[in-house]
Amino acid sequence: MNQIKPRTLKGFRDFLPSEAKKRQWLIETVRSVFESYGFEPLETPALEYEEILLGKYGEEGDKLMYRFKDLGKRKVALRYDQTVPLARVVAQYQNDLPMPFKRYQIQNVWRAENTQKGRYREFLQCDADIVGSSSSLSDAEVIAVAIRSLEKLGLKDFRVFINDRKNFDGFPKEAIIEIDKINKIGEEKVRQNLIDKFIAKNTDEANKLLNLIRNNKPTDTVNAILFNLKLLGISENKYKFSPVYARGLDYYTGMIFEIEVKGYNSGSVAGGGRYDNLIGSFAGKQIPAVGFAFGFDRLIEAMDKLNLFPQNLTTTKVLVTIFSKELKEKSLEVYKKLRDENINTEIYLDENTSLDKQLKYADKKGIPYVLIIGPKETKENKVTIKNLKTGSQKTASFEDLIEQFNN
Amino acid sequence: MNQIKPRTLKGFRDFLPSEAKKRQWLIETVRSVFESYGFEPLETPALEYEEILLGKYGEEGDKLMYRFKDLGKRKVALRYDQTVPLARVVAQYQNDLPMPFKRYQIQNVWRAENTQKGRYREFLQCDADIVGSSSSLSDAEVIAVAIRSLEKLGLKDFRVFINDRKNFDGFPKEAIIEIDKINKIGEEKVRQNLIDKFIAKNTDEANKLLNLIRNNKPTDTVNAILFNLKLLGISENKYKFSPVYARGLDYYTGMIFEIEVKGYNSGSVAGGGRYDNLIGSFAGKQIPAVGFAFGFDRLIEAMDKLNLFPQNLTTTKVLVTIFSKELKEKSLEVYKKLRDENINTEIYLDENTSLDKQLKYADKKGIPYVLIIGPKETKENKVTIKNLKTGSQKTASFEDLIEQFNN
Repeated sequence: MNQIKPRTLKGFRDFLPSEAKKRQWLIETVRSVFESYGFEPLETPALEYEEILLGKYGEEGDKLMYRFKDLGKRKVALRYDQTVPLARVVAQYQNDLPMPFKRYQIQNVWRAENTQKGRYREFLQCDADIVGSSSSLSDAEVIAVAIRSLEKLGLKDFRVFINDRKNFDGFPKEAIIEIDKINKIGEEKVRQNLIDKFIAKNTDEANKLLNLIRNNKPTDTVNAILFNLKLLGISENKYKFSPVYARGLDYYTGMIFEIEVKGYNSGSVAGGGRYDNLIGSFAGKQIPAVGFAFGFDRLIEAMDKLNLFPQNLTTTKVLVTIFSKELKEKSLEVYKKLRDENINTEIYLDENTSLDKQLKYADKKGIPYVLIIGPKETKENKVTIKNLKTGSQKTASFEDLIEQFNN
Repeated sequence: MNQIKPRTLKGFRDFLPSEAKKRQWLIETVRSVFESYGFEPLETPALEYEEILLGKYGEEGDKLMYRFKDLGKRKVALRYDQTVPLARVVAQYQNDLPMPFKRYQIQNVWRAENTQKGRYREFLQCDADIVGSSSSLSDAEVIAVAIRSLEKLGLKDFRVFINDRKNFDGFPKEAIIEIDKINKIGEEKVRQNLIDKFIAKNTDEANKLLNLIRNNKPTDTVNAILFNLKLLGISENKYKFSPVYARGLDYYTGMIFEIEVKGYNSGSVAGGGRYDNLIGSFAGKQIPAVGFAFGFDRLIEAMDKLNLFPQNLTTTKVLVTIFSKELKEKSLEVYKKLRDENINTEIYLDENTSLDKQLKYADKKGIPYVLIIGPKETKENKVTIKNLKTGSQKTASFEDLIEQFNN
């Protein structure tokens, strides 16, 4: 057993407490916004019958899917996204679900991607969708929820770019894929790509194509959504019609949007749109749907870059150290009193550890205060409080201590 | 595509909102207690190299493990529990972790079990462990955290049964396995099993064995833990030394405990103990550890049975209906004002739906109030509030409305 090297698979990650706490904080924040709008949680299994998932994500998807035979020789596959499972759920429990069905889902998905910066084989998806409504109010609500979530996370300088897939009707698919890159790689490169990939014969034709798309006007759909966003009280500098955003996924049928954060240039942190033909696939009828997803890893990256996570996600307020084996009960007495006051308190779990090591423990965990109860403190019925950030310390009565931590 | 039947694999479950909300509430409650004691979250991947997991759970474990070759021909396996991944993490990041390392982990695991009532192939584990401390204070803290969690969930009538594996030294393993069942199947059956399985020759010998174990006294370890529990302020009627609890898992080396809830007879809702030889397996040295896990599905069942979930986990306080297309903007105005007051409000997302259907939507989602803003209300600048539980309704000014929902 000793020879086995402790390691993880390429593209798979451990999240140690410092990272796990950030993820959790982000999830909780976003979830509270989703729920405030009436989106409810849904969980689906990690494993599905292969036939449920196969053929739903194009050739690429089938190739990257984790598939295998289980012990009962069933062909199974790991969850590849959360939209196809949603479609299955809608068909399977049609009569039990309120319609429109507003659900959010925050679970891992698995894709055997080529690993590269920011690409993982296990990653969290964070989706919110409205199933069963074709009203433009639903399109607007989905955008509003995305905006409110980002605001709640502390992001200020971001913008939603809204377009309509119908604006691309008649344009070759290859051209749309290239033009979609304009905000990432710039106009110059897009023009060159259009020529290199034989979509346009020359610069003139490429420019014509670019201009044609750039001159697209908001459709009636887009206008209705923009109007609803205003009624919903979303500030107008947060969203904008943009004719060049196309979004890669085949399945969109109407409104599409992406959100970019100023100061973070590794791609949009959220995207979504209307997809009226996918959800009904298992039910055998058309069921309209609109939704969006956060790029969870990107969002973490953007928040890190902009320094938006709360400074200290450590929940423990104070560590009660144990001065010596003899004084252990004294420390436990103080510890118990602090906990009785509902102050998140840890006691150091070993009475044979040097005080120095105990302080290092608190420091490593980001615990802001430690208490020291030595012979002198015990005699005077006091405690010494050390602020680990400033290094300052003072001796106080127990009552003063409680007051400090309750404020 | 239409011919594919929407279904899930045997032993795998969808959690629709009503169930998912309960699970989430339970997780959040338990997590808040874990964190208040300084336990921090850890996440490990769903897939590990097979060699990391293989051979760690006995023959049975290897057999029930989901294993396959990935696209890169690597032998991989799905997470089978959270303890072996913890052992790997401790070895892999030794220098980055504070010691003692107090972590909790709440993730799914997969086991190809024979499905039967209460047995699933995908289920959530909910673990809290302390790695790197052999102090009996750690044993006591783990028990205290379990007790405080159950109390926070609203459970009152439960008891922790504490024993020491050392009390079974010298007893044949088969005998221990049988005697462990005494609280589930009764003494009569255990006695018969001991004879049937050739562990005891006759009733006399079986009784002798039973009495020998039943007369075991608390060890010094158990006494130290009981004393620490008292110091931690845990009420003495919550825990008890019990010589017959043995716990099935091979890897325990000291204190063991199980928690039973009165009124719920499908097994213990939590269990744990000290296991000083497992965590160090990857690090190649002994690392003491103590921890416990909730039986998540059992806990849900017990809470359901005892009616302990909050009556309404629906976060939406009020649904604003849309009376007609013409009056949509009026409804949106009221909706916006309620949201500006931070009241969780939904607007019905379709202006072409009958009021009756909108009320049914609210009812299905468990939304307690609906607002109706028809021509009369619009003219009088009022709203009609309907309480869906009582059926009563009244007309009020907007200010009165806000006041009602803010209280």
